[in-house]
Amino acid sequence: MSKVVEASAAAQASRLRVDGARLWQSLMDLARIGATPKGGVCRLALTELDGQGRDLFVRWAEAAGCTVRVDAIGNIFARRPGRREDLPAVMTGSHIDTQPTGGKFDGNYGVMAGLEVVRCLNEAGLVTEAPIEVAVWTNEEGSRFVPVMMGSGVFAGAFTLEHALAQRDAQGTSVAEALAAIGYAGPRGSAPPVGAYFEAHIEQGPVLEAHERVIGVVQAALGQRWYDVVVQGMEAHAGPTPMALRRDALLAASGLVAEVNRIAQARPPHGRGTVGSLEVFPNSRNVIPGRVRLSVDLRAADDAQLGEMDAALREAGARIARERNVAIAIEPVVYFPPQPFAPELVEAVREGAAALGLSTMDLVSGAGHDAVYLARVAPAAMIFVPCADGISHNEIEDARPEHLEAGCNVLLQAMLRSAGVAA
Amino acid sequence: MSKVVEASAAAQASRLRVDGARLWQSLMDLARIGATPKGGVCRLALTELDGQGRDLFVRWAEAAGCTVRVDAIGNIFARRPGRREDLPAVMTGSHIDTQPTGGKFDGNYGVMAGLEVVRCLNEAGLVTEAPIEVAVWTNEEGSRFVPVMMGSGVFAGAFTLEHALAQRDAQGTSVAEALAAIGYAGPRGSAPPVGAYFEAHIEQGPVLEAHERVIGVVQAALGQRWYDVVVQGMEAHAGPTPMALRRDALLAASGLVAEVNRIAQARPPHGRGTVGSLEVFPNSRNVIPGRVRLSVDLRAADDAQLGEMDAALREAGARIARERNVAIAIEPVVYFPPQPFAPELVEAVREGAAALGLSTMDLVSGAGHDAVYLARVAPAAMIFVPCADGISHNEIEDARPEHLEAGCNVLLQAMLRSAGVAA
Repeated sequence: MSKVVEASAAAQASRLRVDGARLWQSLMDLARIGATPKGGVCRLALTELDGQGRDLFVRWAEAAGCTVRVDAIGNIFARRPGRREDLPAVMTGSHIDTQPTGGKFDGNYGVMAGLEVVRCLNEAGLVTEAPIEVAVWTNEEGSRFVPVMMGSGVFAGAFTLEHALAQRDAQGTSVAEALAAIGYAGPRGSAPPVGAYFEAHIEQGPVLEAHERVIGVVQAALGQRWYDVVVQGMEAHAGPTPMALRRDALLAASGLVAEVNRIAQARPPHGRGTVGSLEVFPNSRNVIPGRVRLSVDLRAADDAQLGEMDAALREAGARIARERNVAIAIEPVVYFPPQPFAPELVEAVREGAAALGLSTMDLVSGAGHDAVYLARVAPAAMIFVPCADGISHNEIEDARPEHLEAGCNVLLQAMLRSAGVAA
Repeated sequence: MSKVVEASAAAQASRLRVDGARLWQSLMDLARIGATPKGGVCRLALTELDGQGRDLFVRWAEAAGCTVRVDAIGNIFARRPGRREDLPAVMTGSHIDTQPTGGKFDGNYGVMAGLEVVRCLNEAGLVTEAPIEVAVWTNEEGSRFVPVMMGSGVFAGAFTLEHALAQRDAQGTSVAEALAAIGYAGPRGSAPPVGAYFEAHIEQGPVLEAHERVIGVVQAALGQRWYDVVVQGMEAHAGPTPMALRRDALLAASGLVAEVNRIAQARPPHGRGTVGSLEVFPNSRNVIPGRVRLSVDLRAADDAQLGEMDAALREAGARIARERNVAIAIEPVVYFPPQPFAPELVEAVREGAAALGLSTMDLVSGAGHDAVYLARVAPAAMIFVPCADGISHNEIEDARPEHLEAGCNVLLQAMLRSAGVAA
């Protein structure tokens, strides 16, 4: 092959654009499966509706010339061959399961964007050096079965297949049974190597919108430490008990809520601290609370910083317990270390966006995504696009077609940079 | 009647002591009606069990020579005649209804102490100038029917008989129906004047025990202002939402909890501030709370101070709403003005205790009691005795026989000072 032909193929590739209307239509078609009256989607992992969504994806992928395989945890891989089938695949994907009151874009966008990349390459007749794969990861949301990010977690060896298959939902159905029921229990076998993994996703936060940028170039996923906290004071009557003799569990818990905020505020720009859940006992108007249960969620981009935050939380708990004459028990329940993405893939995303003339912004992923597990076993990166008001996990979740199209074009360009163009 | 005889009657009166063992036995006998496995009592107002408790009181009062009358809201009055039946009665009493998981002493002590005073006078053959009455007030607790302190409230004109009779429990039964069902719907008619009202009660707080005193000389009942507060922020993901862009309703609510405490701490010794109830929405570990509902309970001995506390609460709410970018709505739901007790009756309690050589302490009543309503229509005072760990409204509520006896002796002496001894 002459240098002229190669140059021409590269030039063709850089001019390639996805079909934004087709991408949008695919998202809308998929969103009809499990559509809710308020405009959202309820398609819980491994339900019959999830099965229908999977079937639709498989039909579309096969119509686009892909070969489809399913692994033992139900992950689906649609493969478009490369010129060199010996090279590891350049993969993209996400999930199509949703929260009970979920939206049309969370996860679904990453899968439909991958499918659109394949369709676009097909129309252009463009062959990549490495094969391209579009993955649909099983049970990212964790609404019906835990752990969350189950399919990508098994794929990356974060936990075993056996552990995942044995999990049961509230009705007692196991993952293994649910997979078999919808026909997505694939054969066992080791996962083939992945050359690179890209995931396009709505931001699920307000930063791109606040800064009026179209493309988030995701540097890393925040590390997370979650805790269950119990504050034990002494229940007493609000009237007859003087302030000095109280052991008010809610007053102490409120101090801890403020400290969690301070601990995160002191570590900008990526420190996060949240008390999302708090319950008061006996929760009666004129009784001083005797006990409070609360959750703490700390996140940081750097593991040493996350460790500092952990120490600061424990210190604050001990100080408040002393000051308020209560007992505070802090129990760690989840630890995800921070996960940096692969610099060369992050650059591919940035260059792709730059070549397209799109405004970008460096971001971190505050939430967990399948890409975070994939990053343990392959070079990985993510592309964020804005969502309306940063709202997600909500039926009113929304995103603009031109943003989704832009993100898909960046995905296409970044994947072509990784996979290589065969001419 | 010669001066010698008078002096001798007064001397006899001052030497008179109640029978502590009999008082304790009466309390234990009454506590068998509605006894709970954990040693408490569940005898909700106007239930069949309340009817049995009332019947027992009436039998005991009649056996002690009293005439018994019942008014239209079911208050029971057991009367021991005085030498001068034209004088207004010197009254004591309390209630025998309990909380669902109540104790043996709250309310019951005041009624049994009154009965013991009558029995003691009978044994001594001592005639008072003014008649003595022992009152059992209907539905002080308010657990089944609101408003609380219903019987004494109607008696004192705090609300109308019609309003009280029309109230319904969770099953739809009205107060009027419940009174009729247990045979305690008395005739209508205006309440006779009360010369003086004393109420003996367990403290329901920890102050006497902390100071190792036996008798609380109650100066006043705290005024109360109760509020319902709603904090409206913006629900968002804990991971992707940077600290600076949050509108965290729980963080704002925690600030308010701390302020309620500061507002009360700044007004010693009687200022009280309590958030007893707090609920978070959606109350999910990794979602920034969008909304919090909480109660605020402010108390003070002085109405101007209570007004200052009200203003400080509203100011704190407005400031926190601004700082945290949330909306805070503060809705007043209850207002009781502070109620001073009658100085001459408070002195009678103090002198009675001093004559008996008992340690005393000036206290305020932080909780509501029937005496607080009675104080609107008659000179009134209260006598507090310690309860174990200050715990009340609890099946483990406990009090020491010698403290109950001491309080009853003070009640006897204070009532004799008010009623006069006829010789």
